[in-house]
Amino acid sequence: MNFLEERILREGRVLPGNVLKVDGFLNHQIDVALMDQMGAAFYRRFAGVGVTKVLTIEASGIAIACSAARCFGVPVVFAKKSKSSNVGADVYSAEVASFTHGNVNQVIVSKRFLSPGDRVLIVDDFLANGCALNGLITIAEAAGATVAGIGIAVEKGFQEGGALIRGRGYDVASLAIVDAMDASTGAITFRQQG
Amino acid sequence: MNFLEERILREGRVLPGNVLKVDGFLNHQIDVALMDQMGAAFYRRFAGVGVTKVLTIEASGIAIACSAARCFGVPVVFAKKSKSSNVGADVYSAEVASFTHGNVNQVIVSKRFLSPGDRVLIVDDFLANGCALNGLITIAEAAGATVAGIGIAVEKGFQEGGALIRGRGYDVASLAIVDAMDASTGAITFRQQG
Repeated sequence: MNFLEERILREGRVLPGNVLKVDGFLNHQIDVALMDQMGAAFYRRFAGVGVTKVLTIEASGIAIACSAARCFGVPVVFAKKSKSSNVGADVYSAEVASFTHGNVNQVIVSKRFLSPGDRVLIVDDFLANGCALNGLITIAEAAGATVAGIGIAVEKGFQEGGALIRGRGYDVASLAIVDAMDASTGAITFRQQG
Repeated sequence: MNFLEERILREGRVLPGNVLKVDGFLNHQIDVALMDQMGAAFYRRFAGVGVTKVLTIEASGIAIACSAARCFGVPVVFAKKSKSSNVGADVYSAEVASFTHGNVNQVIVSKRFLSPGDRVLIVDDFLANGCALNGLITIAEAAGATVAGIGIAVEKGFQEGGALIRGRGYDVASLAIVDAMDASTGAITFRQQG
């Protein structure tokens, strides 16, 4: 069991509806030392792939992305959520449905910050159905950039996003993959990873 | 001239309507080394005040807050913007008007993450009219916490937020205070600070 799985077992809370609350250390209150451990783990995993930018989406991905980018010595670019579907010609955009909030956001990145030469490490806190991640992949590839790797903190392995995106050939590293949760007992089962 | 003022002069863009674009290094693309310089500057400024939490607001404050919190060895808490005015009893909330987006957000922090014993360093990327900062102060004080200091990257000194909040007795440190901007020439005038 790695450092993130241990922390989730100790402080995560399983709520009805397959909700895993990790807001005490990951996405509301942030344990910066934990972010740095995650950043270092992504660096070890993707050190050889020539990363030039770390791409994430506001807001919860930013802290992890900064810790990773520090290791790689590259900038972070974070995609912004825009209520408006009337986005300008100066941005790459993708539609991202949020099941948490029950709406659809345009997600945008300025064309000035992604280029065909970029090798992008995409980082996010959660991977479930893959909507946000698909949006980030769409944006990176619209820029002509290469998705060099994908680093996720917590993957919900019982939802289809991870399998679909790996099936398209992307190299997805999830530090913790939750294969099952039980809100009545609080039990969390992690996938064994090599 | 300090490191942030130099960077703003070199890469910031002045647009009509008193807009200062710093999205190449601060709030869309992020230069993590610059965040760390800012975090270290806030640490030097507020090292003696017993900070227990760094409080910011999503999304652009998070990177700076993480760099500062690493220096202090304390967690970050970021306030979330909520479209809903129907917030639960388990959160502290404040209304924050956004002039950029022309709307009003409820800004919320879970009651689990701020306590009467906390001495809070509030951090944000911009201070202009002070709406976001006032919301964060309201939330911290609703929790019974003490606002031990306020660290801002860029203050628009020609708007009233900084003067109003200093006038209420808060210790506000802005790394760059812009006293005037001219979109026609691109000129930026910084306030001399000791």
